[in-house]
Amino acid sequence: MEFKVKALNIEKREYSVILNSSDAHEMGLIPGDRVKLFSKGNSIVASIEISQSVVSQNEMGLYINTLERLKVKEGDVISIKAVSKPSSLHYIKKKLRGEKLSRDEITEIVMDIVDDALREVELTAFVISTLVYGMDMDEVEWLTRAMIDTGEKITFEKAKVVDKHSIGGVPGNKISLLVVPIIASTGLLIPKTSSRAITGAAGTADIMEVFADVEFTAEELKEITEKVGGALVWGGSTNIAPADDKIIEVEYPLSIDPKSQLLASVMAKKGSIGAEFVVIDIPVGEGSKVKDVKEGRYLAKDFVELGNRLGINIECAITYGGGPIGRAIGPALEGWEALKMLETGEGPRSLYEKAMGVAGILMEMAGLETEGKQAAERIMKSGKALEKFREIVEAQGGERTISSDDIVVGEKRYDVVADTEGYVIHLDNKKFIEIARAAGAPHDKGAGIYLHRKKGEIVKKGEKLFTIYAEKGWKLTNAIEKAREEFPLIIEGMVLERYPRYQQYQL
Amino acid sequence: MEFKVKALNIEKREYSVILNSSDAHEMGLIPGDRVKLFSKGNSIVASIEISQSVVSQNEMGLYINTLERLKVKEGDVISIKAVSKPSSLHYIKKKLRGEKLSRDEITEIVMDIVDDALREVELTAFVISTLVYGMDMDEVEWLTRAMIDTGEKITFEKAKVVDKHSIGGVPGNKISLLVVPIIASTGLLIPKTSSRAITGAAGTADIMEVFADVEFTAEELKEITEKVGGALVWGGSTNIAPADDKIIEVEYPLSIDPKSQLLASVMAKKGSIGAEFVVIDIPVGEGSKVKDVKEGRYLAKDFVELGNRLGINIECAITYGGGPIGRAIGPALEGWEALKMLETGEGPRSLYEKAMGVAGILMEMAGLETEGKQAAERIMKSGKALEKFREIVEAQGGERTISSDDIVVGEKRYDVVADTEGYVIHLDNKKFIEIARAAGAPHDKGAGIYLHRKKGEIVKKGEKLFTIYAEKGWKLTNAIEKAREEFPLIIEGMVLERYPRYQQYQL
Repeated sequence: MEFKVKALNIEKREYSVILNSSDAHEMGLIPGDRVKLFSKGNSIVASIEISQSVVSQNEMGLYINTLERLKVKEGDVISIKAVSKPSSLHYIKKKLRGEKLSRDEITEIVMDIVDDALREVELTAFVISTLVYGMDMDEVEWLTRAMIDTGEKITFEKAKVVDKHSIGGVPGNKISLLVVPIIASTGLLIPKTSSRAITGAAGTADIMEVFADVEFTAEELKEITEKVGGALVWGGSTNIAPADDKIIEVEYPLSIDPKSQLLASVMAKKGSIGAEFVVIDIPVGEGSKVKDVKEGRYLAKDFVELGNRLGINIECAITYGGGPIGRAIGPALEGWEALKMLETGEGPRSLYEKAMGVAGILMEMAGLETEGKQAAERIMKSGKALEKFREIVEAQGGERTISSDDIVVGEKRYDVVADTEGYVIHLDNKKFIEIARAAGAPHDKGAGIYLHRKKGEIVKKGEKLFTIYAEKGWKLTNAIEKAREEFPLIIEGMVLERYPRYQQYQL
Repeated sequence: MEFKVKALNIEKREYSVILNSSDAHEMGLIPGDRVKLFSKGNSIVASIEISQSVVSQNEMGLYINTLERLKVKEGDVISIKAVSKPSSLHYIKKKLRGEKLSRDEITEIVMDIVDDALREVELTAFVISTLVYGMDMDEVEWLTRAMIDTGEKITFEKAKVVDKHSIGGVPGNKISLLVVPIIASTGLLIPKTSSRAITGAAGTADIMEVFADVEFTAEELKEITEKVGGALVWGGSTNIAPADDKIIEVEYPLSIDPKSQLLASVMAKKGSIGAEFVVIDIPVGEGSKVKDVKEGRYLAKDFVELGNRLGINIECAITYGGGPIGRAIGPALEGWEALKMLETGEGPRSLYEKAMGVAGILMEMAGLETEGKQAAERIMKSGKALEKFREIVEAQGGERTISSDDIVVGEKRYDVVADTEGYVIHLDNKKFIEIARAAGAPHDKGAGIYLHRKKGEIVKKGEKLFTIYAEKGWKLTNAIEKAREEFPLIIEGMVLERYPRYQQYQL
């Protein structure tokens, strides 16, 4: 049947089309059924929505993504044909029965994910099947390879490629801004792709955006890296392992992260850029993704085995993740803290030790140094890392002369003070993230938190515990409200609950 | 924050709103996040979609379902507030870990399903968790009770209420059109709600619609039943156990039907109308939902146990489902076949025996008869059942004088003939359904199939095997095409595969 295109100026993730209810009934289609649309040599599979009024008979409503993909516009004529469900659905149902999938089956599922041929319900079914039944190492390897093969790949010839990755969950973890320039100073290549925060306060891409552009294609990432040795870009724009982004879209609402997906997601990105040596940072402890060192070790073992299968040398750094790294949380504040350390060679121990440690492991793995951490410290203290960071910023379209004094943080501020004297015995990762987000992070770059006291430090009554930064007054109010509801810090001897609570924080 | 309503004339299942991307970023919302909308005392939880162009800043796009639920129109002002995920999501994740749910947890999940507070991804996760881990009988009972409690209930005081249900999957199964008037003639009440076909060729509601209206509220269903003793209405319009319809929407694209849902779905409908005695028809055999008698018995045992817990007396009729019931498939053809049997007291054995058998069991259960089947036959042959059927048709707004001669079936017809002589040894349920659907069923009431030969019958070369009926020429062509691709019938000694195939059926 043929239909006239009606352009609907709405963005959607899935490809879907709106049919008039009488056309749909006529063709025996119900919402969710699949049709193939054809126009001038282009075709696409979309699912059906039905309306009695948006489109007339013989009209078909197309959303922005479908219009662009099919290269059609209002008034064009397209033909459609009912199609059966994709065969990858059979494999998803096989996994739902708890059976092991073959390499071909996994490849087909991933191809359909990338092509948006699976509906959200079906993709959810796949992700949940891997959560419930797990995947063995064969399946994880095949999943990783399929993710690599369905995206862009970069090959570097000039030098060894290394990379680092943190599995996340800990606020303030800005170490990439230190590790990347240190490593790039040594002649190794480190084309780092990072995420923007989805549930966190600041992803590495959000922080780097304070200094420079972060949206580049894979080709541009290659050019920048070959020019200055390193890059800090947003992975989402590179089309490297794009299946991963689509999988995350269904994991996010369920807040699930099956281990097999975590492994494949990280390693697909590293495999796609041809990394030879990779350090995986696994923060462990209360409020991070991994409970304790023992569980961290299991995960590390799987990363190493998967690396072996893919020909990538992996070392894992199991790190302390029971509290924020450094004292700054939020894009501009974290950028400030990292740059200040590059400028002065000094700063919070938790940040310094971790960044130097990870950079050191990479240098040792690549055979450059036997005492990597000391070498990393030398590079930073010599000013070479700062110089390299500025080169990277310039290569990504930022100001080469950037200094920590130039960074603008939120002007709306509120100091949270101690109402009792004692040692700080607990900092809650999740609550700090929530407060920073309420203050506007990561969207408002200047929003966030600066910790004046960390775990083990003593505080007197009336002294500042942390400062909330925001760009907008109403967001500051929200963040203060949130800090009252869920106090993120425990002082030894502190009264944990009062009614009515937190009167001391009246504005 | 406050927004101006922009009305979007699009129908959606889920409640969702479109925000301008800059407003969304401002509020830190990403697609899929939940917000609560408030307007003049009404409120609703909806998930976020984001657009750069459909809505301007401070505008919010609302779809038809949301406009209606909130009682707002273009230009109205509504306020919104970000909300956290529903707590039922925690229970869904608990089930995803394989743990047993409590009654309160299940109740909360069902309430959120009915309120559309769960996103499709989350509802899918729930359905799949029950598929993978199953539910024990406690959980099934709580699920059933929650489904009953979240919908309309009907209480009859005049007489005993009985009901029947077929778990489906077999084409031509029009027995309710016989059982309901027979039972209603005895003084028992039988307020039968049925489905429309989703994947089948004709649901009982589709067939009844050939004679009368089928869309009634629960209140109207009660009135009709109290007036004439029985009814044959579409369950979807009654708001009885509405959670079930929403669950089916995610089961359908995955073509899954977890046993716990099947049990709860059937029994919630029976519980909601206060049925005291219920017969469950479980067709077994190739191409039906249940493989064999043994598996049918397991399911029957569960139905009986669930009935005991709910205070409903259940008997199951395990019936032959390896081929179509009667000779007619499709709404008008099935209506014709059923009415003809009511008029003459005769017709295909498979239909006659099954309908009389099920009606008989109901009468025996209710204590009316000791030889129920013979009693049912007497009622039908006396003409009382025909008279009662006409009363029901009239009560549902149809013509009391309806006769089988008045029924209009499709005028486009095609006879499929045997190309060899032999006994018919197999009829394929699924293929017959597909052919009938290609011909236009259930939407085109006159479309369907009439079987001239059934299993065990002899056919000579050139004799008619079945006739395809359609209302439209192009659909007839599609159906013939489908019959060529997937021949639905095997004649002993027949060549099963030829290349090129089925030349004999050229139009």
